[in-house]
Parts: sequence; structure tokens; C-alpha cells
Amino acid sequence: MAASMEIVCVGNELLIGKVVNTNASWLGKRATSMGIIVKRITVCADNVEEMAAVFSEVLERKPTFIVSTGGLGPTFDDKTLEGIAEALHRKLEVNAEALRMVKAKYAEYATTRHIKVDEMTAPRVNMATLPEGTVPLLNPLGTAPGVRADVEGTVLIVLPGVPREMEAIFEASVAPLLRQVSGGVAFYEESIFADNVMESVLAPLIDAVMRDNPSVYIKSHPKGRENKPHMELHLSTSEKPTEKPEQKLKKAAAQLSDLIEKADGKVYADEEGGSAGKT
Amino acid sequence: MAASMEIVCVGNELLIGKVVNTNASWLGKRATSMGIIVKRITVCADNVEEMAAVFSEVLERKPTFIVSTGGLGPTFDDKTLEGIAEALHRKLEVNAEALRMVKAKYAEYATTRHIKVDEMTAPRVNMATLPEGTVPLLNPLGTAPGVRADVEGTVLIVLPGVPREMEAIFEASVAPLLRQVSGGVAFYEESIFADNVMESVLAPLIDAVMRDNPSVYIKSHPKGRENKPHMELHLSTSEKPTEKPEQKLKKAAAQLSDLIEKADGKVYADEEGGSAGKT
Repeated sequence: MAASMEIVCVGNELLIGKVVNTNASWLGKRATSMGIIVKRITVCADNVEEMAAVFSEVLERKPTFIVSTGGLGPTFDDKTLEGIAEALHRKLEVNAEALRMVKAKYAEYATTRHIKVDEMTAPRVNMATLPEGTVPLLNPLGTAPGVRADVEGTVLIVLPGVPREMEAIFEASVAPLLRQVSGGVAFYEESIFADNVMESVLAPLIDAVMRDNPSVYIKSHPKGRENKPHMELHLSTSEKPTEKPEQKLKKAAAQLSDLIEKADGKVYADEEGGSAGKT
Repeated sequence: MAASMEIVCVGNELLIGKVVNTNASWLGKRATSMGIIVKRITVCADNVEEMAAVFSEVLERKPTFIVSTGGLGPTFDDKTLEGIAEALHRKLEVNAEALRMVKAKYAEYATTRHIKVDEMTAPRVNMATLPEGTVPLLNPLGTAPGVRADVEGTVLIVLPGVPREMEAIFEASVAPLLRQVSGGVAFYEESIFADNVMESVLAPLIDAVMRDNPSVYIKSHPKGRENKPHMELHLSTSEKPTEKPEQKLKKAAAQLSDLIEKADGKVYADEEGGSAGKT
């Protein structure tokens, strides 16, 4: 069975719509590309009780991976590790390796940023205070380390919310692990575009092609022009390269194109139509 | 107590990172502006079992409102109403009012789009098939009506995933309800920007200002330039205009600015600094 993932994003700024959750879509895309099935994304507030509830619930569903973003850092509302400690019934303790990482960062800032960084204040020690039995992950671009916790078969990865720091820790410490677990399965996708055919006409055509091509998933995305129906038809599959996923997508796309043309629709291989279009 | 909301977004395209979830941030922003506290956002797959689980869990937490997006429409994977019917233990049935709405839309398309729309096919009737005891909400810009279900004190609103349709139904049928329930509470916010001060230095200053201004919430957002710390400090409160929220924000912002300047930081009233900046 394919490895699964849930994503948890912590931050009031996401709930009030101040920030669009591009971290979730970035993680979803990267994990999917490595053959991991992303099952759910949960966004919750910077509130220990809320976070503890969310992490407990996610852990109960036993995904292969949980990746969280946000709430790692020195300010009062960086509480993700408190929430996780509560969910795991573990104490928080200063982690020697994490403290070494944080100290090294401030020594670097003292040189590169010419900022006075003369002591490990409480907010700084806070970034090295982890639930017991967890492991810090080096943050190549920022101060707060990521954290890894292994919990009854689930690997829980805790990342900061600043996108470039989140991405850097993910690429260095998480991506290799996902690749290893997915065992060579990858995500393949192809889109065709159709004009002059409504979603209600497409529905039975998509059904027929999916019945004929059981490993291919097809989803129609209306592209939102009111007076001229325009659809993206997105075909995808998660398989090993040896299962010839690209050929399967091509076969299904060709079959769907034929059916759409028989229903008086116009099919294009790219978004804009034009020279690449089959009319 | 303030009215609360949870948002549920249905769609594989969100989980695989093909689409960034701007529907959630749009809804979060609109609801927050009307004084509603958004507690959680959950994204799940186009899968009846998954959706039924998600809606059951959200309903158990008894928010004042649940607003869902996605999975309303004629294609095989538009299954949100099936998932909700299962969560509510209600049957699906053709709703006479919804059927009237769908028929009227296709009659309109026959004129405006010059598309042959001669019968209510199964996918079309599907859009008018609602859980029993629910009410369709007119879709001013598309075919699939929204749906309202009242469940033990929670109002569940089901909207399509196409942003302009979702927004149009929200403004016409949902916003007036939120305004009425929130009883005049609104969201007020103000940002100041600071250079040359690290988040770890800011942390105790923010703590002090929040202790002095209990109705004001302050969050620091690092703006991601590596060699020069640059922060947005976002101050917000949800109150009635009679409680003078704008004055409270101004007072807290002034206090925080003073503390940052005493710590050798530079404070600006706008993102770019410059003429509006207080140095």
C-alpha cells in the first residue's frame, strides 16, 4: 500500500486569510511527486490546546508521515512544540544538539549581520526546547531547527512556517526519507483542454474512460469563462516507472479526446489551444 | 461568546498541490472581517468515506458555522453531498426547488451559449439531489446550487469550488447571516514594520505590550531577507465599534514602536519604510 501523509499548518494568519497557505500546496506537490498519498491538510490556531487536539487526532489516523509547518521560533506564539508535547504526553526539555545548532546560528549572525548576540536569552533557548525523545533537524537558512519524532510507526516532522526555511529543511532532511519509503513510486500527470463541451456532458465520458483505465484518475476543472465552456481535464496516476504510467496516461487521454470530439467538443493539448490543438 | 466557523475544502487538486487553496483564505478573510472566529480549515479528498468522516468530526465540535467548498457539480467526483448525507445519516433526494434552479440555468445556457441542452440528464439531476431537509442556495454564476443544512445549532453551508461561484453564493446568501449572528463585532488590524531587530529580541517586547493591551493580539511575521532582519508586526482585535478598537490598536502600536526603538530597532508605518517611517 502507498505511503500516506497528513499536513498540519499552524498559524492564525492562515485562519484569518492574511496569508494564503502556499506551504501546504508546496508540500502536497513535493510529497505527491515522490509517490506519497496526501490524505488531509489541517490548519489550526496558535493555541496549545487546539494544536494538541489536532496532533492527537492526526496521530490516531496513523498516516506514514505527518508534516507540520509554523509555530517554531522565539516568539510567545511559537507553541507548536508545546502542542505536540501535550499530544504525545512527553515533557519539553532543552535538547543539547538543538542548543548547539541555535548557538552556532547566533554566532554566525554576530559575524554576518553585525548584530550584538551576546547571550542565550529565554526566547533563544526556547527554540532548542523539544519534546523528549525527539531529534532536531538542521535549519540551513534560519535559526529554529526542525524536529523529528517517531511515534508508533508514524514519522512526525515539524517545520517552521517561513517558506524558504521550511523548504530547505524539507529538501535536506525529509525528501530523502520520503523517496526511500515510497520505493520508486512516482506521480505522473497530463492535462488536455476542451472547449464547447459542458461539464455535465463530460461527466459520463470521464466515467467511461476511468472504467477502461483503472489506474488513471481524471478530474475536470472548469476554467471559468462564462459564455464559453472551457475545461481542463487532468489525468494522473501514482506508479513505478516499470508499470509504464506515461503510456497509460497517453492511452486514456487519447480515448477521452475521441469521446469529446464525438460529442462536438474541441480538444487541445495545451491551455491556449492554437497550433498544438487538435480540432 | 464570538461566533465560530470551520472551513472544509474538498478536492484532490488541493492535496496534490495542483491548486493553491485561495478559497480558504478568501473565506477566512471575509468571515473574520465580520467578527467570526475561524477555528480550523480541513482539506480532504474527493472520497465519500473521507468526507463523511471529516464532516462528522467537524459537526461534533459544534462550531456556529461550517462552510465547505468543492465537490458540487455534475461529474463523478462531485461527491460532497453524498459525504454530508452519510455524516448526517440522511437520505439523498431530488429537491424540487434545486431542480427548478438547475433547469432554469440550462434554459438560460440554451439561449446565451447556443448549446443544445435538451434534457435533464443524470449528471444534471445529480446537482439537484440534496440530503433531505436541506435548502438550496441560488448560484448566480453557475449551475450547481449551494446548500444549507441546519444541524443541532450549527449552520452548514455547502459551496462549489469554482472561486467566482463560491464567492457569489457567499455574498448573496451567507454574508448577511454572518453579519446578523456576529452582532456588530468586526475585525480591526494594523501593521507596523521593523528593521534591525531580531525576532528573539522582539519576543519579550511583544509579550509586554500584549499584557498591557489584553484585547489586542500581536503576531510577528519575518519577511525573509537573510542579511537584514525585517519584521511585520501585525496587531488585531475583534470588537464592536463602540469598544473603540482602532484607538486600542493605535495605543498598542505606539507602545510597541517605542520599545523597539529603545532596543535599537527602526520602525516604519508601512512596508517599504521611507517617508512614512519613524526612525
